[in-house]
Amino acid sequence: MVDRRAEVPAQRGERRRGGPRRGLADRCARMVRSRPFEVAIVVLIMANGAVLGIETYPHAGTTASVLRGTEWMFRVVFVVEITIRVLAYGRRPQDFLRHGWNVFDLLVTVAIFVPGLHGDSAVLRFVRVARVLRLVRFSPGLRTIVTALWRSLPGVAAFLALAGVTLYVYGMAGWLIFGDRYPEQYGDIGRSLVTLFVLLSLETLPDLLEQGLEVSSWTLLYYVSFVMIAVNLLLNILIAVIVNSMEEARRLEMTEGLSPDYDSDGDGVPDEVDRIAISQRLDDLRTVIAELERELRIDREDVPRR
Amino acid sequence: MVDRRAEVPAQRGERRRGGPRRGLADRCARMVRSRPFEVAIVVLIMANGAVLGIETYPHAGTTASVLRGTEWMFRVVFVVEITIRVLAYGRRPQDFLRHGWNVFDLLVTVAIFVPGLHGDSAVLRFVRVARVLRLVRFSPGLRTIVTALWRSLPGVAAFLALAGVTLYVYGMAGWLIFGDRYPEQYGDIGRSLVTLFVLLSLETLPDLLEQGLEVSSWTLLYYVSFVMIAVNLLLNILIAVIVNSMEEARRLEMTEGLSPDYDSDGDGVPDEVDRIAISQRLDDLRTVIAELERELRIDREDVPRR
Amino acid sequence: MVDRRAEVPAQRGERRRGGPRRGLADRCARMVRSRPFEVAIVVLIMANGAVLGIETYPHAGTTASVLRGTEWMFRVVFVVEITIRVLAYGRRPQDFLRHGWNVFDLLVTVAIFVPGLHGDSAVLRFVRVARVLRLVRFSPGLRTIVTALWRSLPGVAAFLALAGVTLYVYGMAGWLIFGDRYPEQYGDIGRSLVTLFVLLSLETLPDLLEQGLEVSSWTLLYYVSFVMIAVNLLLNILIAVIVNSMEEARRLEMTEGLSPDYDSDGDGVPDEVDRIAISQRLDDLRTVIAELERELRIDREDVPRR
Amino acid sequence: MVDRRAEVPAQRGERRRGGPRRGLADRCARMVRSRPFEVAIVVLIMANGAVLGIETYPHAGTTASVLRGTEWMFRVVFVVEITIRVLAYGRRPQDFLRHGWNVFDLLVTVAIFVPGLHGDSAVLRFVRVARVLRLVRFSPGLRTIVTALWRSLPGVAAFLALAGVTLYVYGMAGWLIFGDRYPEQYGDIGRSLVTLFVLLSLETLPDLLEQGLEVSSWTLLYYVSFVMIAVNLLLNILIAVIVNSMEEARRLEMTEGLSPDYDSDGDGVPDEVDRIAISQRLDDLRTVIAELERELRIDREDVPRR
Repeated sequence: MVDRRAEVPAQRGERRRGGPRRGLADRCARMVRSRPFEVAIVVLIMANGAVLGIETYPHAGTTASVLRGTEWMFRVVFVVEITIRVLAYGRRPQDFLRHGWNVFDLLVTVAIFVPGLHGDSAVLRFVRVARVLRLVRFSPGLRTIVTALWRSLPGVAAFLALAGVTLYVYGMAGWLIFGDRYPEQYGDIGRSLVTLFVLLSLETLPDLLEQGLEVSSWTLLYYVSFVMIAVNLLLNILIAVIVNSMEEARRLEMTEGLSPDYDSDGDGVPDEVDRIAISQRLDDLRTVIAELERELRIDREDVPRR
Repeated sequence: MVDRRAEVPAQRGERRRGGPRRGLADRCARMVRSRPFEVAIVVLIMANGAVLGIETYPHAGTTASVLRGTEWMFRVVFVVEITIRVLAYGRRPQDFLRHGWNVFDLLVTVAIFVPGLHGDSAVLRFVRVARVLRLVRFSPGLRTIVTALWRSLPGVAAFLALAGVTLYVYGMAGWLIFGDRYPEQYGDIGRSLVTLFVLLSLETLPDLLEQGLEVSSWTLLYYVSFVMIAVNLLLNILIAVIVNSMEEARRLEMTEGLSPDYDSDGDGVPDEVDRIAISQRLDDLRTVIAELERELRIDREDVPRR
Repeated sequence: MVDRRAEVPAQRGERRRGGPRRGLADRCARMVRSRPFEVAIVVLIMANGAVLGIETYPHAGTTASVLRGTEWMFRVVFVVEITIRVLAYGRRPQDFLRHGWNVFDLLVTVAIFVPGLHGDSAVLRFVRVARVLRLVRFSPGLRTIVTALWRSLPGVAAFLALAGVTLYVYGMAGWLIFGDRYPEQYGDIGRSLVTLFVLLSLETLPDLLEQGLEVSSWTLLYYVSFVMIAVNLLLNILIAVIVNSMEEARRLEMTEGLSPDYDSDGDGVPDEVDRIAISQRLDDLRTVIAELERELRIDREDVPRR
Repeated sequence: MVDRRAEVPAQRGERRRGGPRRGLADRCARMVRSRPFEVAIVVLIMANGAVLGIETYPHAGTTASVLRGTEWMFRVVFVVEITIRVLAYGRRPQDFLRHGWNVFDLLVTVAIFVPGLHGDSAVLRFVRVARVLRLVRFSPGLRTIVTALWRSLPGVAAFLALAGVTLYVYGMAGWLIFGDRYPEQYGDIGRSLVTLFVLLSLETLPDLLEQGLEVSSWTLLYYVSFVMIAVNLLLNILIAVIVNSMEEARRLEMTEGLSPDYDSDGDGVPDEVDRIAISQRLDDLRTVIAELERELRIDREDVPRR
């Protein structure tokens, strides 16, 4: 879903070489990169979202036909948009699909032409709703957050795994303890896991605790230890995600102003420069600075001051 | 609502020039800036709030007339207060309205004289309650927090937008999935949004999850993913607001002690000095230091150490 | 409740001067400062707490008389303890009362001799429970936390005031909007405040929101804005308290190892040294260090390295 | 449960001395340290967990016998695994039990051979579930978190003690106030503590508050103060655990790359190097740097610069 490479072709090189020979591809590429084009698409996506919202209310004949008309208008416009974006790739249209967001765009736009999805089928309705998500692609702010949150996940993978193991072991133990008595909540491992997941919101704590006390006072130990361990792990995960994603967001923003050519296609992602390498180098820098400071202080101590 | 400029005229210059020629405006300005005046107004606003609270309890004839009398007393005093504050602006009374809090003060004070608001109309009652908010204006501590919280909002705008998009997309999906079955909760996009907003408090999670499991086990995915994404975004927003507002508050406090003349009218806001510029400069400084560190490290690499 | 001064007299000076002339006061003072005495008291307080807990269960004749016997034993021991601690002050027994914890100790110990409190009166029972709190006084760890939390309160005073104003204004507005319709929840300002305080736990959000929607869709604005502002303020307060108290605790711990004579009476609080001044100086130091580092870096740039 | 020493014997020394003379113990030790062995065990534990989960669903005759067969296969494999690991210790098999995780492994593996635990007894079922926990031992990521969380506990011991004292005193007070009226909730100290523990989740706040208001308006003070103090302490504990465990995790990771021989058995724990000593030394370093800075600053002050 998150793609770090440019999602729009950078045809600077071509342009320079080709000089005045500017074909359709070039004009499309320029159009795609232009601010008015982007603003227009964002406004259209939001209008599309609003129309979808209005459709959820009951509406009489006239409104219904107007809404159907607007929907067709949106379909046409989005198909035109995506055609322009594909054309911008010139003789390499297959490159268009190398970028996650482009694939997503194509899917939600072209799905209406798939036979069997015509009319008001459920899948088509979800596809139309999914179009609203394209807003994220067009807003640099949203994209930075989504990318940052996404990239902060590996940092909490071990925590998530530990939370999973904890949930599973407690789920199995819950099935052993309460399985026969409360089949509704602990009848099998699936129900146990749902029960314990909901317990994470602490909503069902009073009821479950009371239920448990009917079985034995020792079940207190089961619930109290679960709540304490799970809430601790959860908060750990949430805070680690936040800290990591803030760091990631900071890095993404820092690397944005690095080179004049860093982002020729205006999609907010550097082209030639590998962001990961940069942030790594920035971290190295910080370490070097720390060492420097230490040395400086030691110098001061060893060498008598003039 | 939040205004960074001085809300009381600084007539120091005039005073110096004018020497002994001190008119009504000058005397009013000095009065407005004096500590006893401020303390008196704060005490009056709190007393006004207490009276409003007492009025909510049932009271017999005598108490009612006493309360009505106090209310009239407060009205008169607040009108006198605002008159003095307007007079302090001398020949430029229109400047009084250039500051947000002054406009707010005028509105909540003068509203009682608007015909049609007499008696015990609903609007008038709200206006009287709104007077209590004037406490914020008169307490530097409260004002700093409100200003800091307010200014931290732009920093989380992208997060709020993403939370909005998430809520909307899940709302639409909820309507598609549950709209027919649970019209009470998901009958239209409005109800969907309210349902999901309440779900953010995790209170309704057990009930909704159970409801969803009746439709299909796959709805677990809908609720679990929503809760995880939404709670994460929410906590992110809350912590970002807190971190940002603490930073803002620190800046506001730092800039307060900068120059002896920084705050001649005693309202806690520097006059001649532009606070924004200062905090900007402080940020620049930090950047310069960072660049310095980078340079030092490059020196190290390029030039062999003797 | 929190007292920064020594709670036990420091008679070092006297001892040195007096040489071999060691009276009762001196012996008591040494005993009070001795480790075994402290440990014994802590164990006794915990045993007292355990006995109080056992008393809450129904018990037959024999157990009851045993428990009554233990209670009398504790009373005697605590009176003896406090007598020794008062005697340690020698000819200045009134100094004993200059320290908050000593006053607390005296109250919970001597209360049983107040006529009218004999037997099983309610006040006496609370007094006995309050004895358990004396654990805080005898554990340096607990005392540091309590002191740190207590001292972090001024730092959030403005936040608490703002939360109070917010609660009050929303309480008044709630009374105006819902007062007639839901007297149970919003009948007067007191009920409004309780309703809104409970709403802070988000437990009653679904019910209140539903109730509100019956009055008008606009009440959504009332509840949503309240929840957002209040939860934000609350979290701000909690995190500020935690950050402040951690800082305070760090300071309290740092100042503990400063001078060999810093804590002659073994109560964990420096005598001659003013803690506040020290932590202030430590903060100054940190600033100076930051400036130093900056200078060092500038030196590097201007002056060529040897 | 958490063991900092190597859990697998490091027989490098022996190997070097012994040269070509490689016995069974040596071959076992090498096998235990090999990557494929570890991966195989992790896969087996996860498969074991999955089978346990499947068993919770009702299953007909064929599936049941297949499941029973798999269970026996797992038992054999785990016994073989542990035998290899014991053999790796050569002539000092008793050393195997010197490491917490080894003891845990032995218990959950050998328990099936204890007479009286045969068949489908409850204890045996729990033992089988506990085997899933062995995943933590084999994943360096999980082990680091568990170790870090475990070691962060002493740092919050005082907080936990204070929370305990608070809970106990409020529990006793609750019994005194509500014991007669609401025996269900406050009938004895045990019930009081459970009631107050559940109240920490804020779920029962509305009900308890309402219940309390029927007794007296003053009980508001009891509940409001409890909620405020307890939530504050809880959040303090949670955040302290998170901050401490992040620090611990950072240390554990830092010490991992220290020496080429630091971890010859590939279990992620340094052998010859005492981790504790290292992290201690790192802390000392930080203190020395701080002192250095202080000295530098004093130099600056005392000695006039050129």
